[in-house]
Amino acid sequence: MKLIQCVPNFSEGRRTEVIGALRGAMENASAAKLIDCSCDRDHNRCVITLLGEPEAIRDAVIAGAATAVKLIDLREHKGEHPRIGAVDVVPLTPALNCTMDDCIALSHEIGRELAERFGLPVYFYEQSARSEQRKNLAVVRRGGFETLRESPLVGEREPDVGPQMAHPTAGAVVVGARGPLIAYNVNLNTQDITPAQNIAAKIRQVREEGSGLVGVKALAINLWSRGLTQVSTNITRPECVSIYDVYSFIEKEAEAMEIEIAGSELIGVIREDALIASFCSSINLPLIPTTRILDSWFRIDNL
Amino acid sequence: MKLIQCVPNFSEGRRTEVIGALRGAMENASAAKLIDCSCDRDHNRCVITLLGEPEAIRDAVIAGAATAVKLIDLREHKGEHPRIGAVDVVPLTPALNCTMDDCIALSHEIGRELAERFGLPVYFYEQSARSEQRKNLAVVRRGGFETLRESPLVGEREPDVGPQMAHPTAGAVVVGARGPLIAYNVNLNTQDITPAQNIAAKIRQVREEGSGLVGVKALAINLWSRGLTQVSTNITRPECVSIYDVYSFIEKEAEAMEIEIAGSELIGVIREDALIASFCSSINLPLIPTTRILDSWFRIDNL
Repeated sequence: MKLIQCVPNFSEGRRTEVIGALRGAMENASAAKLIDCSCDRDHNRCVITLLGEPEAIRDAVIAGAATAVKLIDLREHKGEHPRIGAVDVVPLTPALNCTMDDCIALSHEIGRELAERFGLPVYFYEQSARSEQRKNLAVVRRGGFETLRESPLVGEREPDVGPQMAHPTAGAVVVGARGPLIAYNVNLNTQDITPAQNIAAKIRQVREEGSGLVGVKALAINLWSRGLTQVSTNITRPECVSIYDVYSFIEKEAEAMEIEIAGSELIGVIREDALIASFCSSINLPLIPTTRILDSWFRIDNL
Repeated sequence: MKLIQCVPNFSEGRRTEVIGALRGAMENASAAKLIDCSCDRDHNRCVITLLGEPEAIRDAVIAGAATAVKLIDLREHKGEHPRIGAVDVVPLTPALNCTMDDCIALSHEIGRELAERFGLPVYFYEQSARSEQRKNLAVVRRGGFETLRESPLVGEREPDVGPQMAHPTAGAVVVGARGPLIAYNVNLNTQDITPAQNIAAKIRQVREEGSGLVGVKALAINLWSRGLTQVSTNITRPECVSIYDVYSFIEKEAEAMEIEIAGSELIGVIREDALIASFCSSINLPLIPTTRILDSWFRIDNL
């Protein structure tokens, strides 16, 4: 069985009936399993994790997009997280018995369908990108929906497939194959956004200097509803930098500013090898192989 | 498929040819998988992890014991770890689709065979114990082989099955069903055993007072060959106390004595839920369900 992990991000994290409709549409449309739904009011975003065979993933994403285009109006959407679309980004990652090429092919197929069925401009990113700069999601999403809708999508803004103008209410969508990424947030016990901004800037600086935190992206986010602020990160090279490495970097910086950590959050699911890497960093243990996790022996491909 | 995890501990951690013979005997005797072998020169002990169906586990243990009785002479065995037998202890733990009762039944069957075939006195411990005090391995093993061989095994020392005297070279064996346990050691960068003794005593004290570290057993061990000392622990209630909790307790105590942690060691395999618990404690994250580990979806019982 070929299994793909797909993590569509929808621009809705508040209206529970819309989130329920998105989940229901995807669960009813295909045999793909909906294995996680991580929502946040302040980000105003919902991150759904699907696991299934390629056709099942395609059907689930199309059904989710149909619901999102119908129920989400970006003109009325406000949230702390950057976004250009109702279905903002659709990453595809090889999970079991499949290759990155399988995911790239599926991403292009899904992109074409999203353009044809819903009139959405589609950008291909990461491994599916057709130009170097489209590889970087932050570049594709720069300016957000509000900038995207102002003028025709030509030149640097021309979509890979679909119309040369933003959908009036659903914006555009970014689709692509990528390796496993960890979405991980650390919350600070202060309403002042400055410390989170300073820590996020320091993470980017350390990364750019090549002095650690390779592949860690960081943003400062206000969590108005909880009276906290957040350093929101994406760990894009979990084989190099563990979750614990990111946590302890942020903890140390926060301590120096005498700010308490209010807790941390993992968005979506993680791979077992990332869990092991974090576990081993945290207790000064050499990296143990997956075979030393008893449960890994219960896998389809092991027994 | 009913899978049992069995972790026979043999009193040999130095002679590689003997360890190889033990492994070979068990691998050849049955379809049980030998999934880990953790050895230590200073403990002079080898901890092997088997995974298989009940009859396969029984056959592997009998074959391992035959080799151990032939090749290990406890009269010449010196090591830092307490022991009473060449095959010192044989714990059985439910792994998949089986119950504690399955493990208890198998432990009694294995015990009878070890007594009949090799003339070994057998004690049943933990869930397989036939009296309250036999539940505790430390009590059964008190005094070690050297005390056991001095006089007939009668009264409190009478074995559950087998002869009323220690085997002249292989001693006795302890067999029993138990829940998952984590054997975890933290090494201190000092040759002085006192700090390790103080930390081990403090762990026992905190546990006895009921003020934390529930179910954590601790011993101080000299690691002569590495010029280190060790706080060797068994975490018997991994659902209450995580590996990270134990590590950070020891780290804090060592820091107060200005002693560096030289690293830590996990013996054998661990369960995924123990890994998750440790991971979550270390990054101030609420406990996440196993379903958020992508790989858990690849299991035999999930898909």
